[in-house]
Parts: sequence; C-alpha cells; structure tokens
Amino acid sequence: MRDIDQLREHFLTHLSQSKIKGNPPNLYDPVNYLMGLGGKRMRPILLLMAYELFDDDISRAMDAALAIEMFHNFTLAHDDIMDEADVRRGQPSMHAKYGVNAAILSGDIMMIKSYELLKKETRDADWGLVFDIFNKAAVQICEGQQMDIDFERRRDVDVDEYITMIKFKTAVLLGAAMHIGATLGGASKKNSKALYNFAIDLGIAFQINDDILDTFGDPSKVGKKIGGDIIQNKKTLLWITCQSLLSEEDEALFQSLIALTNEDNDKKVEGMKTLYKKYKVQDAASNLMKRYYKSALSHLDTMSVEEPKLDYLKKFATQLMNREN
Amino acid sequence: MRDIDQLREHFLTHLSQSKIKGNPPNLYDPVNYLMGLGGKRMRPILLLMAYELFDDDISRAMDAALAIEMFHNFTLAHDDIMDEADVRRGQPSMHAKYGVNAAILSGDIMMIKSYELLKKETRDADWGLVFDIFNKAAVQICEGQQMDIDFERRRDVDVDEYITMIKFKTAVLLGAAMHIGATLGGASKKNSKALYNFAIDLGIAFQINDDILDTFGDPSKVGKKIGGDIIQNKKTLLWITCQSLLSEEDEALFQSLIALTNEDNDKKVEGMKTLYKKYKVQDAASNLMKRYYKSALSHLDTMSVEEPKLDYLKKFATQLMNREN
Repeated sequence: MRDIDQLREHFLTHLSQSKIKGNPPNLYDPVNYLMGLGGKRMRPILLLMAYELFDDDISRAMDAALAIEMFHNFTLAHDDIMDEADVRRGQPSMHAKYGVNAAILSGDIMMIKSYELLKKETRDADWGLVFDIFNKAAVQICEGQQMDIDFERRRDVDVDEYITMIKFKTAVLLGAAMHIGATLGGASKKNSKALYNFAIDLGIAFQINDDILDTFGDPSKVGKKIGGDIIQNKKTLLWITCQSLLSEEDEALFQSLIALTNEDNDKKVEGMKTLYKKYKVQDAASNLMKRYYKSALSHLDTMSVEEPKLDYLKKFATQLMNREN
Repeated sequence: MRDIDQLREHFLTHLSQSKIKGNPPNLYDPVNYLMGLGGKRMRPILLLMAYELFDDDISRAMDAALAIEMFHNFTLAHDDIMDEADVRRGQPSMHAKYGVNAAILSGDIMMIKSYELLKKETRDADWGLVFDIFNKAAVQICEGQQMDIDFERRRDVDVDEYITMIKFKTAVLLGAAMHIGATLGGASKKNSKALYNFAIDLGIAFQINDDILDTFGDPSKVGKKIGGDIIQNKKTLLWITCQSLLSEEDEALFQSLIALTNEDNDKKVEGMKTLYKKYKVQDAASNLMKRYYKSALSHLDTMSVEEPKLDYLKKFATQLMNREN
C-alpha cells in the first residue's frame, strides 16, 4: 500500500505527462493552466486509494483519477465565472487570465475530455457502470451549484436543504471517485457502496469544515482573507443556524448587518462573528461535522477488507478533519 | 419507410413528452425553453433516417435522437453567450432570457443530460462504440468553435482551414448522428462509414449554403437581416475567396470596408457585395458547395442497401441544398 503522499506524487507525475498538446492552442492552453494550478488533489487520491484496496496495479486507474480531477476543474472554471471569482489558488482564475468566453469553451472541453479519459483504461465490462456513476454525479453537481445560486436570494434555507446542496455540490464527486476506483479495482458491490457512503459523509464533513474555517480559521494558515462568506451573505451552515436561533432584537441587528455593503466589510464580519459566538453556532456546526465524520468512518467498518488496508483511509479522513486550511 | 415530415412529427412528439421536470427549476426551465424554440431538427431526423435503413422500430432510437438535439442546443446556448447573440430562432436566446450565468450552467446540464439520453436505450454491446462516436464529435465541435473564434483575429485564413473549421463546428455532429443511428440499427461497418461520410460532406455543403444565403439570400425568405456576416467581418467562404483574389486597388477598398463600424453597416454590406460580385465569389462558393453535395451523394452509392430506401436521404439532401432559408 502506498501512503497518501506517494499517491499524490504518482498522480502529479501522471498529470504532468498528460498535458493536452492538441489544437487549437487557445482551446487547450487554459486547460493545462488550470490543471497545473495545484490544490490538494483530494479526488484523484481518493479514487486511487479505493482502487488500491482491491488491486495493486494503480497504473490502470491513473486516467480515471485524471478524469475526476479534470471534471472537478471544469466545475471550478465555470463556477468562478458565475461567482466573479478572479483568484483561484492564489493565481488568476481561468476567466481572469483568458477571458470569459475562453473559460466557457475551455471549461466545456474539460468536461468532454473527462469522459474520454474515464473510458480510456476502463474494461468494456465495467464501462456501463463506471459511466453511470460518473454521469449521475455530474448531474447532481450542476443541481447543487444551482441550489447554491438559488440560496443567495432566499432567506428561509434550512439545514436539510443546506446539507443536500453541499452533498450535491461537493460530496457526490468524492463519492463517485471512490465508487469508480473500487469498481475498476474489482471490488464487490457491498464494498463499493461502503466506500461511496464513506466519501459522501466525509465530503459533507469537509464542506462544513470549510464553512467554519472561512469565518473562524487562522488567517495566517487559511491562506485567504477571513470572512468572505459573511461579506457575500453566503448561506453557510453558520448563517443558517444563526438565523434560526435569533431573538427579535438580534433579528434586527442581523438584518442591518446583512444589508451592509462594501465600505463596511470589516464591521460586517466582526458584527456577524459576535452574533455567531453569542448563539454558539460554531459549536453547532462543529458537532454536525463530527457526526458526519463519525458516520463516514462507520461505513468502513462494514467492509470486508483486511483492517490494516483501511488505515490510510482513516488517516486521510482525520487529516481532512483536522486541517487548518 | 417514413418520410421526413413523419420522422419530424415522431421526434417532436417524443420531445414534448421528454420535458425535464427535475429540480431545481431554475436549472431545467432554460433547458426546456431552448429545446422548445424550434428549428429544422435536422440532426435527430438524420439519426432516425439512418436507423430506419436497417430497423423499422424507431422507438429504440428516439432517445439517441433527443441526445443529439440536446447536445446541439447546448452548443447554441454557449455559442450565443460568446457571440453576444441575443436572438435565437426569432426569440430571446437563453442568456438573453435567463442571464449569462444561467445559460452557462443550464448549458452544462444539457451536455451532461445528452450523454445520459444517449445511453438510455443503447444496448450494452453498442455502448462503447456509440460513446466513442459521440465524444469524438463533441471534442471536434469545441475545437471548431475555437477555430472560428481564432479566425476573427486573423486575416490569412485559407479555404482548407475554413473547410476544416466548418467540418468540425457543423458537419461532424451530422456525421455522428447518422453514424450512431446506423450503429443502433445494426448496420455493417461499411454502411455506417458511408452514412458518416455522406453526412460530413452534406454538412459542409449545408454550411457553405448558409454563408451564401447570409449575403445573397432573399430577405423575405431567410427570416433575418441580410449581411450579418459582412457586418461582423466573419471569415466566411465568400470573404476568404474574395480577399485571395483582390487587385492592389481593390485591396485598399476591401481594407476600408472592413474597417467600417456600426453607423455605416448598409454601406459596408453594399460595398462588400459589389466586390463579391466583381470577383464572382458567389459562383466559386456555389461550385464548391455543389462538389460537396455530389460527393455526399456518391457515398450513398457505395452502400449495400436497397435503392428505394435511400430515396428519402437523397430527397432530404436535395431539400437542404435548394433551401432558401
């Protein structure tokens, strides 16, 4: 078994050997740019970990891992346009560097290429199932992104809706990555399903953690300005939990804070953090995160795989939960 | 054998029964809107015609026909954003009606759903090949769109490059439609290939015809303003042919015409048409179109299918070539 860093190295080597040299360059240069920007490479690593539980020869899973990472980056390219986010991993986002039109079309080709990569090394007998897993996740990711957009204009989002949104927008691609990795590796249905559920719950916990870090993280470690979600009035778990608990008096304060615009960003972040603290919403969010984290681990216990093989997965999950960025 | 109008009716019935009722509505309403706007439905009809040459039960091909039409409409949604085209089939284009962000994301889901539809009724044994045909076309369509965008900034585009661009941007999806229809119907490799080549050449002839109609069509029949390509300095076959033939004196005139902007649109269109007439570029384009049209028909002659069955295909091709809109 390879550890997480070894798998990441393997993946990065494969990525650097897989640059698209196709024509026209104006279509493919933005793809290579975005794919090279870095990131945790969490999705391909999860796919390879799932594969390796059942088969040692991970070379057969490298293109599928690349497919999942490419699909993820396609969603980043288009989401960054929609969110008008000009920075991605400390560098200009795709549309900031190449223009909106280029980011639309190069995003499109990334999606199409991810299907091609997914099929490349997949056995004919597996292709129907692998495609179905991937495509279902792709549909849900678009639905999750639309829910997220719809939430911006709504005040009445509840926790269940929020969980569905982050499950679709974030967790299902982690789930698909592990489900595909397991399928390619020859896992039983039961083991594949357990890994899918593990990744779904882990993905939800991961996203809740993201929400917490965006507001309460250590600025020197998070690597971006704290409070971005508050400034944008994003319907995070913190926001949703807080607004459901407000007294009548604080409701008026909350209203005035979310009405604040650009000039008063610092005041807005401080004011909301004070409210969040008063209603202990960080604790509530943290508890929900831990529940999903525990639930994730519980799925591993249902698997018929030798215990030591699962250690890396548990370690990976723990690292994700304890991260500070 | 059903005639073209019967096949269109079949397809439109299936389309109206296949409206996406999924959630969230803000994601799927724009999809249903664009799919309902009309059009010739050329691609699904070609798929069904190819299928019917080999199998009578076209119900098995309806979802694949819908997949091809949905993919085509995905490209329209995103192309209209890039071209800032606010009108599509006489109605507001998707982004004009729902906004750019909605058109990006609803376009994305159309692409993903087209894969899903394509697989729905496809036999397991055919799925690998059908997917490959579709995905190769999808890649080329994006490459063709990028070539078209690149041409805007270039003066030195030649006829070969232009033919490659319209082949990728337009013809390969017609080719894929017939190739997939034939494959689903159980055609031999030889027959499938002949139909693919027929559609490619027909698609190129169709696009050249489009170029001619945009400049020399009858305004009362074309259904849009004449000269749009000239106003935008589009590198059409007329433009490319003309600029390769210009005398030194006319080169200066050509330069001054392409430099004209909004206020002088009528002057620009008239001036360019005069140059086009002087250099007989309409005849040159028309001759090239006829060559591709003849070549298209010649592929049908290589097929081992009873002659009368091919009559509808020949009729369809002739209709496309003689159309005035």
